[in-house]
Amino acid sequence: MLPEDVQLISVDDHVIEHPRVWTDRLAARHQEAGPHIVERDGGVQAWTFEGKVIPTIGLNAVAGKDPKEFGLDPVRFDEMLPGCYDIAARVADMDLDGVHAQMCFPSFPGFAGSTFFAAADKDLATACVTAWNDFILDEWSAYAPDRFIPMVMVPFWDVEATVAEVERTAAKGAKAITFSEAPHRLGLPSYHSEHWDPFLAAAQDADMPLCLHFGSGGAPDVAPDANFAVAIALFGMNSQFTTVDLLLSRVFHRFPRLRVALSEGGIGWMPYVVERVDYTWERHRWYTGVNADVRPSDLFRDHIFGCFIADNAGIEVRNLIGIDNVMFEGDYPHSDSNFPASRKKLADVLRDVPDGEARKIAEDNARRVFNFPRTGGSPIRP
Amino acid sequence: MLPEDVQLISVDDHVIEHPRVWTDRLAARHQEAGPHIVERDGGVQAWTFEGKVIPTIGLNAVAGKDPKEFGLDPVRFDEMLPGCYDIAARVADMDLDGVHAQMCFPSFPGFAGSTFFAAADKDLATACVTAWNDFILDEWSAYAPDRFIPMVMVPFWDVEATVAEVERTAAKGAKAITFSEAPHRLGLPSYHSEHWDPFLAAAQDADMPLCLHFGSGGAPDVAPDANFAVAIALFGMNSQFTTVDLLLSRVFHRFPRLRVALSEGGIGWMPYVVERVDYTWERHRWYTGVNADVRPSDLFRDHIFGCFIADNAGIEVRNLIGIDNVMFEGDYPHSDSNFPASRKKLADVLRDVPDGEARKIAEDNARRVFNFPRTGGSPIRP
Repeated sequence: MLPEDVQLISVDDHVIEHPRVWTDRLAARHQEAGPHIVERDGGVQAWTFEGKVIPTIGLNAVAGKDPKEFGLDPVRFDEMLPGCYDIAARVADMDLDGVHAQMCFPSFPGFAGSTFFAAADKDLATACVTAWNDFILDEWSAYAPDRFIPMVMVPFWDVEATVAEVERTAAKGAKAITFSEAPHRLGLPSYHSEHWDPFLAAAQDADMPLCLHFGSGGAPDVAPDANFAVAIALFGMNSQFTTVDLLLSRVFHRFPRLRVALSEGGIGWMPYVVERVDYTWERHRWYTGVNADVRPSDLFRDHIFGCFIADNAGIEVRNLIGIDNVMFEGDYPHSDSNFPASRKKLADVLRDVPDGEARKIAEDNARRVFNFPRTGGSPIRP
Repeated sequence: MLPEDVQLISVDDHVIEHPRVWTDRLAARHQEAGPHIVERDGGVQAWTFEGKVIPTIGLNAVAGKDPKEFGLDPVRFDEMLPGCYDIAARVADMDLDGVHAQMCFPSFPGFAGSTFFAAADKDLATACVTAWNDFILDEWSAYAPDRFIPMVMVPFWDVEATVAEVERTAAKGAKAITFSEAPHRLGLPSYHSEHWDPFLAAAQDADMPLCLHFGSGGAPDVAPDANFAVAIALFGMNSQFTTVDLLLSRVFHRFPRLRVALSEGGIGWMPYVVERVDYTWERHRWYTGVNADVRPSDLFRDHIFGCFIADNAGIEVRNLIGIDNVMFEGDYPHSDSNFPASRKKLADVLRDVPDGEARKIAEDNARRVFNFPRTGGSPIRP
């Protein structure tokens, strides 16, 4: 059972950036090309960036809607719940949802900043990253510091600037870094290269886990005529790919204190995947150049953390995964969210789980992994 | 526990074709271009087909080797176990391994015939499929009919010829069809199209399940500099993609008696994936055009069958999958095989499983799914 005094922590939610996130912060020379909202024909609001119009302001900002109404993303801020973009309304929605704290991913920039990676002007792009980080640290999370685990982006197209941004934001209190689950799918060097070493070293030194959200390495490769439900159901496979890729790479051998959280990937697949990696490693470690001494399942336990929304299969096998490696996520305001019943739904999923294990899953693991200690306060219960 | 009287059935093994499979059967006009073995410099034996030399005669034919010697495929028939290509030696190896019956996939043609699909001369290609099917029916399986479940290929580039080949081989006693897990990845129409309907209808009418082997839809998309262990560990993801693709397609609604076996995909991921598909379906069935009435998990139970070599995580969740949906596979002579200890290893994996469930997994489910009734004989135990 989920104990009443648990302060429920969700490690994957989303902020829909309000119209002034960048205009409030970018230098004058970047204002025109930088992200700002334009009003278009028919009352549509859209982001514009480097002269291009990006029509969806709130991709998948469907919290509170009936699934029968899913399918059309909001085209105006006033079509979505104010909690999507307004911090006071967000906290009120968290209270309603029974969620004590959230960790929020970016929306317009992409889960890990791919919108800025695609920008022509990389000076502008890096400034946009800095602006978003200052927004999430100084405005969004600062509104209620015990209610948000601040996660930042990095200008990953420039490793030196990335290291500097990790150090700058760590000093300001950032706790985690959103990064791509598959940089090679963005056309950049893979986790098997040495390219990311300075960044990974900086993340390790700052004790900031990498949060790899599904989709940050692109969409699953589905048939061109598959309906959209196929891709949605398959996005979690990206997290399985990343798990295998990392466990058979040099990353955790080289950075023994680095931690990685897989966001929205679910957990029910983990025992199978880890066993499969061990099985492969036992037979193929000799000629492939994989580290032949350390069993991948041992790396998994120390380095990889999963999260789930309502994964009954995963809860069934939680002790095969490792009870310390599992966290909850709410996914507000996306379509997978159970808002406003997140805590109720989680309590249902955990109904047969011993209290001590439920406490780890719902609160303690997230506090430990993200260095986010309890500061008092009452548990939020709807 | 695995009862002593169980006749262990493996639903995924591989035949390495001997040099005369096609030369014994092709018409005179096809002999020169058709598959035959050439001796090359340094004692290497290789297949040649349509004038091209294909250097590996026994891809992954490593049964019986120490994993420290893995990495180099055999370059001569006399470098591999005779059981790879010689039917009498195969049966002796099955006796040694404790396996009563096998279902064997092709090797040179690819798991589902992709080598012939790539051929320039499609008349030759179709003749090569017919020849392989006659080999597997009249020579390989006929040697010991109660020891082999005969599975055939189809000339899938030609749906009309495919239907004819299903009917021809069904009349000769074929029990299953190997087909691509992802035809769209071969550049053909997907399972969401109506293109395959005549073929699927013929398979359903003949009561021949489709066997979709991992890799028959291409390799997993890994980083270019990832070591080979990454791809090997990830091949099972293909089966997850196929499961989601089929459950959200029209296939099982349109062909309510069609059955699909996922070969070498493992089973431990199934409860997670099926729950995830249901979760997605509940929220996204309204605007995506997916059948909104039938729950995907109900389709799964009636239509999809998994198999495993040594998947402890999967055995742990066997009742979430459905005890009638799980079968054993040996994978002789590939690197995942536990030859000559397959039965011993399976008994170890099933040590805590009730006898009745173990019997289903090891024998009864395969006999039911593939219409392969017990004909007497003693259980093979090493």
